[in-house]
Amino acid sequence: MFKNIKAVCFDADDTLWQNEPIFRRAERRYCRLMKPYSPPEETARKLFAAEVKNLPLYGYGVKAFMLSMIETALAVSGGEVSTQILQKIIAMGRKMLAHPVVLLPGAEAVLKTLSKKYKIAVATKGDLLDQQRKLAKSGLTKYLHHIEVMSEKDKNGYAKLMADLGVKPRHFLMAGNSLKSDILPVLNAGANAVYIPCKDTWEHETADESKIKSPRYAKAQNIKELLKLL
Amino acid sequence: MFKNIKAVCFDADDTLWQNEPIFRRAERRYCRLMKPYSPPEETARKLFAAEVKNLPLYGYGVKAFMLSMIETALAVSGGEVSTQILQKIIAMGRKMLAHPVVLLPGAEAVLKTLSKKYKIAVATKGDLLDQQRKLAKSGLTKYLHHIEVMSEKDKNGYAKLMADLGVKPRHFLMAGNSLKSDILPVLNAGANAVYIPCKDTWEHETADESKIKSPRYAKAQNIKELLKLL
Repeated sequence: MFKNIKAVCFDADDTLWQNEPIFRRAERRYCRLMKPYSPPEETARKLFAAEVKNLPLYGYGVKAFMLSMIETALAVSGGEVSTQILQKIIAMGRKMLAHPVVLLPGAEAVLKTLSKKYKIAVATKGDLLDQQRKLAKSGLTKYLHHIEVMSEKDKNGYAKLMADLGVKPRHFLMAGNSLKSDILPVLNAGANAVYIPCKDTWEHETADESKIKSPRYAKAQNIKELLKLL
Repeated sequence: MFKNIKAVCFDADDTLWQNEPIFRRAERRYCRLMKPYSPPEETARKLFAAEVKNLPLYGYGVKAFMLSMIETALAVSGGEVSTQILQKIIAMGRKMLAHPVVLLPGAEAVLKTLSKKYKIAVATKGDLLDQQRKLAKSGLTKYLHHIEVMSEKDKNGYAKLMADLGVKPRHFLMAGNSLKSDILPVLNAGANAVYIPCKDTWEHETADESKIKSPRYAKAQNIKELLKLL
């Protein structure tokens, strides 16, 4: 379907490896820890609100999530949260940062195959050190021509990435699980995009797929289907 | 003194703008807040130990500093720290992230002058979003050919930066206030380095200057002296 592609760029979290399930597990445990002070659904809602409010100041990633959990714990408990619980929240965050990288099925095989024909890049947002650590642990760097850790995946960020890769938008294809970050800004930049949904996508990253009408857009059920589209 | 330089790269924090004084002020205030639980000197020592211990996991920057302050507060108080004080620590960190960028004297003039003759880059470590925000606030991006936010400033990181800039080590000059991050790895990579000391350099960034014997090394009293060396 896609012709004349020269560079294929992958999102990392929940496209190449599991990420959101680690956050969701931590969130569920956090809500249980906060039960003495607040019902789990309310804690979850307030944590999400804090994360979104903090995005411009803290950005993405585990450290930002840790700070949002601590702030929410202080807020929903009216300052009554015990320091033991705060210790547990911090320990939970540290464990997330040290979590092993679990590749999604087919990720390595697809990168290996495509790297023979295309420039392969990874474009991820979040915490620089954490993302570099995950890439190193993933064993995928040998297939990569370029790694870009972006503070925000917007149209300008992708334009800069394409310039760095030395490819024109029509020769660039992005694959990822976030319509908001991996698909819409890429289509707006005049490039190609393949949406690979992941059931655990963060609420903040969703968008309405039905509104996407572009000949430069496709949807794949999993990363392996990408091989048929190229 | 330096001949055939094609690219000049600057460290950012405490080379182009004030940074360490903001951390030192926060640290003094933090030690005062913790006085009910621990003497200031001891708090300062334990905070520094926590920061260094946390570096491999959290990396550099304000969010890492906030988490280290919270962890140290819980530790030195034996879990007795009040949630009001924790709130104040978080507010302090948030204020640091929103702090205006104060350029060091001569920084803009030097970049402007050098940008007419050399490729100018900034290589900084720390938090990606925070460093990008400071660069945007600094008004200096118009002089920059390239910006590199590194998770660690080591020999390999500089080798990659020189490759990205398309210059050989002998044509590359790095200027900065940290012997450990801006000077030694650059000299080890075969490139040129100018040390511009800053009285507020973080203890973790210091090294023994007397041991540096290289024809590719010079020391400047301030950023303006760089113009005479080039």
